[in-house]
Amino acid sequence: MAELRQIVLAKRPDGVPTVGHFRLDQAPMPEPEVGEVLVRTLWFSLDPYQRGLMDAGKSYTAPVPVGGKIRGGGVGEVIASRHAGFAEGDIVLAGTGWASHALDHGDALLKLDPGLAPVQTALGVLGMPGHTGWVGLTDIAEARADETIVVSAATGAVGSLVGQLAKHRGLRVIGVAGGADKCAYAVETLGFDACIDHRAAEDWRGLSKEISTAAPDGVDIYFENVGGQTLNAVVPLMNQGGRIPICGMISWYSGQDVDKAMPLPRAWLTILTQRLRVQGFIITDHQDRFRPFQEEVAPLVASGQIAYRETVTDGLEQAPAAFLSMLDGGNFGKQLVRVAE
Amino acid sequence: MAELRQIVLAKRPDGVPTVGHFRLDQAPMPEPEVGEVLVRTLWFSLDPYQRGLMDAGKSYTAPVPVGGKIRGGGVGEVIASRHAGFAEGDIVLAGTGWASHALDHGDALLKLDPGLAPVQTALGVLGMPGHTGWVGLTDIAEARADETIVVSAATGAVGSLVGQLAKHRGLRVIGVAGGADKCAYAVETLGFDACIDHRAAEDWRGLSKEISTAAPDGVDIYFENVGGQTLNAVVPLMNQGGRIPICGMISWYSGQDVDKAMPLPRAWLTILTQRLRVQGFIITDHQDRFRPFQEEVAPLVASGQIAYRETVTDGLEQAPAAFLSMLDGGNFGKQLVRVAE
Repeated sequence: MAELRQIVLAKRPDGVPTVGHFRLDQAPMPEPEVGEVLVRTLWFSLDPYQRGLMDAGKSYTAPVPVGGKIRGGGVGEVIASRHAGFAEGDIVLAGTGWASHALDHGDALLKLDPGLAPVQTALGVLGMPGHTGWVGLTDIAEARADETIVVSAATGAVGSLVGQLAKHRGLRVIGVAGGADKCAYAVETLGFDACIDHRAAEDWRGLSKEISTAAPDGVDIYFENVGGQTLNAVVPLMNQGGRIPICGMISWYSGQDVDKAMPLPRAWLTILTQRLRVQGFIITDHQDRFRPFQEEVAPLVASGQIAYRETVTDGLEQAPAAFLSMLDGGNFGKQLVRVAE
Repeated sequence: MAELRQIVLAKRPDGVPTVGHFRLDQAPMPEPEVGEVLVRTLWFSLDPYQRGLMDAGKSYTAPVPVGGKIRGGGVGEVIASRHAGFAEGDIVLAGTGWASHALDHGDALLKLDPGLAPVQTALGVLGMPGHTGWVGLTDIAEARADETIVVSAATGAVGSLVGQLAKHRGLRVIGVAGGADKCAYAVETLGFDACIDHRAAEDWRGLSKEISTAAPDGVDIYFENVGGQTLNAVVPLMNQGGRIPICGMISWYSGQDVDKAMPLPRAWLTILTQRLRVQGFIITDHQDRFRPFQEEVAPLVASGQIAYRETVTDGLEQAPAAFLSMLDGGNFGKQLVRVAE
């Protein structure tokens, strides 16, 4: 009897999670009902928001129950279909989660064309992370040519798209990343004007000074992806009328370094005196902007004008360790798990 | 030889100011040059933003130099004019500051019609504070009927206009004010749906619970006027897509209670998960919206649909004590100083 394998939440973390908070489970292979499709997972995505799924009721989507599969996006092959739109062999974007196989209603799937781009880009530069960066830059920050933007997690799946797109639109782009290798990549391959290694900075004041040197006209947009000391460093540099779109704050998800954050009143006073607009957004609210995003970005990826990079971890059972490493900045570009060929 | 009297900054405060930070000075009565007008002050305005003028370079306008007059708006009578637009006896809105007389370029003055409304309303409900409330509600918060708004400093010059205008536009209005008398006034005279006395609350959690009871559908707009424990109390109640326009934070201007503010990461996480928009604004950036504000609000004031209340202190020399009392919530409605009849 065939079984599927999946990673489930073994227990809820209190603070920084470990591999012990996950467990590999097996379950009978499901069979599709009418309208459903069975997908064999080829790739699935590791994303910072999944840290939020591990906590009870703290995030913007329902938590994963203890014992439940870690949810998320994946790319797979249809191996059984009772939906008219899909046939065996189709390659699809699906909500596989961290699992070898998944049953999904066909209406929730998107068929991919393997001839257009490597299929796993549907989880990265041409998928949710890219869409997040595009919406943040376009609709939330309303970026304009000749402005200066600071992008945290600069070589990550979201940040690398934001920075390259901003360059494409005529902004000055300052990246912040963890490590000299990432910074070199941001400048040399992604074309950022500068990139500051936050791990080499003594503290947020030192980081602020370096960003300030790279941004002589101040900062108009801070693309908030991480929180932590980068936020402390950038807030004092914000120009009048600046915007801070918030799509993540990975450094605070597990409660680390929360006590090193600037006092709220200081941030609030800067928002007032500099007339800033700070705006949170969740990409699932912006599905109507997926097509315009793809229409702009897919050709830029196809022509090589927008580069992307992946960290690939092989094997379902390696997902928890890869996920924890990513939360600590151990990935370089989009973090993926390859489950099958 | 005639002299003018004025209040100057004696020294910069380090924290909470006292009357010793001010000094009454005399100076020779100036004579207008071509284009200038000499105004005898009748009223001048005390406003929270003037606390910021006392600090070196911390606020959004240039600081008052030590020994310099405290700047601000006033209403006075023209007693000498070398500007074609003004004649002796005209009543004008001018940048008198805290002074018995002031010289101003005529182009900076606005002639008032004493028949339309009491002239000192040009410093309150029909002036800068009213304009601030109108812009914040209309342009920054983009308030819509059937939403719920929480207004801090609910009976102050800005808050009372915001709340009444919001009622007029069909919102549910919850005030927060300091004292049972202010709360009774907010509900009975201003027509708010509810008003919570923050001085009667044990702490911000108690305040939050009371606001929550008065706002069963959550809070869509928090009109941020004070900072402090009211902010702590309201943030956890914000609905998805909520807006927080920030036009002041009086409780933090002198560094009090800054350590009682919620940690920044908690506010930041709520901005993200609830998709909030937090936006600072300074009314001097919105002069193009003064006429639309007056066109809407002046008739509502004239017809009595919008009420206003004043705390009048008599005598220039009483301005510092009245100002310090206002910073501590001692005023009830718009705080004015009457200098002459």
